[in-house]
Amino acid sequence: MVRFVNVHHLARWASDTGLEKLLVDLVAALEADFRRWPVFDKTPRVASHSDHGVIELMPTSDGETYGFKFVNGHPINSTRGLQTVTAFGALADVDTGYPLMISEMTVLTALRTAATSAMAAKALAPAGSHTMAMIGSGAQSEFQALAFRSNLGINTLRVFDVDPAAMAKFDRNATALGFDVTLCSDAADAVMGAQIVTTCTADKKNATVLTDEMIADASDAAAAAGEPTGLHINAIGGDCPGKTELDIELTKRASIFVEFPEQSFIEGEIQFLPQDWPITELWRVLTGDAVGRTSNDELTLFDSVGFAIEDFCALKFLYDSISGTDYYETIDLVAEPTDPKNLFALVDLKQPATV
Amino acid sequence: MVRFVNVHHLARWASDTGLEKLLVDLVAALEADFRRWPVFDKTPRVASHSDHGVIELMPTSDGETYGFKFVNGHPINSTRGLQTVTAFGALADVDTGYPLMISEMTVLTALRTAATSAMAAKALAPAGSHTMAMIGSGAQSEFQALAFRSNLGINTLRVFDVDPAAMAKFDRNATALGFDVTLCSDAADAVMGAQIVTTCTADKKNATVLTDEMIADASDAAAAAGEPTGLHINAIGGDCPGKTELDIELTKRASIFVEFPEQSFIEGEIQFLPQDWPITELWRVLTGDAVGRTSNDELTLFDSVGFAIEDFCALKFLYDSISGTDYYETIDLVAEPTDPKNLFALVDLKQPATV
Repeated sequence: MVRFVNVHHLARWASDTGLEKLLVDLVAALEADFRRWPVFDKTPRVASHSDHGVIELMPTSDGETYGFKFVNGHPINSTRGLQTVTAFGALADVDTGYPLMISEMTVLTALRTAATSAMAAKALAPAGSHTMAMIGSGAQSEFQALAFRSNLGINTLRVFDVDPAAMAKFDRNATALGFDVTLCSDAADAVMGAQIVTTCTADKKNATVLTDEMIADASDAAAAAGEPTGLHINAIGGDCPGKTELDIELTKRASIFVEFPEQSFIEGEIQFLPQDWPITELWRVLTGDAVGRTSNDELTLFDSVGFAIEDFCALKFLYDSISGTDYYETIDLVAEPTDPKNLFALVDLKQPATV
Repeated sequence: MVRFVNVHHLARWASDTGLEKLLVDLVAALEADFRRWPVFDKTPRVASHSDHGVIELMPTSDGETYGFKFVNGHPINSTRGLQTVTAFGALADVDTGYPLMISEMTVLTALRTAATSAMAAKALAPAGSHTMAMIGSGAQSEFQALAFRSNLGINTLRVFDVDPAAMAKFDRNATALGFDVTLCSDAADAVMGAQIVTTCTADKKNATVLTDEMIADASDAAAAAGEPTGLHINAIGGDCPGKTELDIELTKRASIFVEFPEQSFIEGEIQFLPQDWPITELWRVLTGDAVGRTSNDELTLFDSVGFAIEDFCALKFLYDSISGTDYYETIDLVAEPTDPKNLFALVDLKQPATV
């Protein structure tokens, strides 16, 4: 039978496990899958764009298990009381082709995105990073904060969002979680004193939430204080054609790390750069095939758009974790007639029961 | 809430509706969607091939509703007591991106494939067709027979399958349904006296279940009997690279009709023909933009591989048909926090209940 993990199951599983433990374990699972990157089937996601957003399918396979995610991105939704991003996903057995699990992935995507960000920052952020600026404090923000604390020890957050209600919500949640939170007047203020900058906004347009000047000023201030001038930018909000967050001049002077170049050149901050612009695939840093950060004065950028292997990893992690628990129910999704060639018997209710 | 249609729901819905009525209504729905073909997003399906089979995603959208199907094709499965093809699908609302329904599609795919075949034959088969040859009598065969009877009045079937048990199974089912069934010694025998030939076999290889000579002999026999020499071939078993059913010489001399050329040249019988080989898109025949059959002596071929719009149509037909019934349950698939930007509240069980 196929497992079905609904929102309640997923939330209870995450809460019972403990989010910070879960985010550490999920980073370990992601690192293991990034290190075996060549094993996976890789294809840019299949997107269907409309006036208000996009619906995408993101499939991959490691030859034993197949997974895909259905995900939408509708920035307008937050103005009508709906989620900007909702998702569900599925795993299947490659040998038989049979589905194994369907799961909600709205919450699971927030967890995998935060874990992926933390994995990249573990490899790329300046040594001794202690403060993170967060530009955007919407649905993803608490997950990002928890992933960075549990994996990198970051407890000091400088936050800005154009929506005061979203900032107040984050302040309330993060303070209750024990974070040291400073609400900032703008993005330039937020990046001052930070070694890591996470941009996580949702406008479906080319925005400039972070200018080259803001980062240059932050580096200058660090130099004046006798500290290293490098930063790591974790850019996760720009993720489709025409939806970016960074000043192109800022992108150009950073050392750029991406998930899957074929997709990142379509959807990431680098969509405005030529296809031969030097970028590094993150998985190569994890295997040791490529160099990550070279000094604490370097500007690194993880231009993250989200890739199918991350969803696959999260689904597989969930599937393994819930075995033998009540964090799922079984559903009657696959027709199984007694005689495989007698599918008709299932709808011919005069025949002996064979469903 | 999202609707979930499981195998029991679907089987009960189909049986209660009556398969022949359902197949007539579904053909009407398909004809309506084929006539508005240009409205749809169209992309070849996204396939992940492995040693034993293939797993595919087939998405499309009409701008209001988005649909996709997950489907596997594992010919080896029938030797291990499993279905060769299993499937499930989903619909979503384009405006919000929210999923509307998840449904089993193993049985629904058999219904849509049979309805698509009948739709094509209504447009292409010789006038006065009364006998259908069926090469292959596996899981799809009864659905094909019922679709051709309800939509074209075909009640006489000449059947051959390499598996005697599959022939006996079909004979039992079809005779109980009131068909006039003749079991044949081979494919050459089956096509004698038929005006329509349906090939529906499942080997994942380039097979030749129908040779040019067999069809030429059948035409000669028809001529000798003073009947029209034309036939319509409904080829549905060849549907991926390296999996075909027809003698290439037979394909070459037929007037060829396909669903979506970009996919058919990869997956269909025409995969061995040059990309500029003259073919006609079936939807153009339905709108009247293209000519179908020109005489009762012509050989027509519907080189069907299955296309996403057919699945979309079947899912939408199901969705509309089950509204207000108990042929589905609702599932908790989409996280809906009270404040869309406070997704974290769902996993922070200390906060007021907001799920």
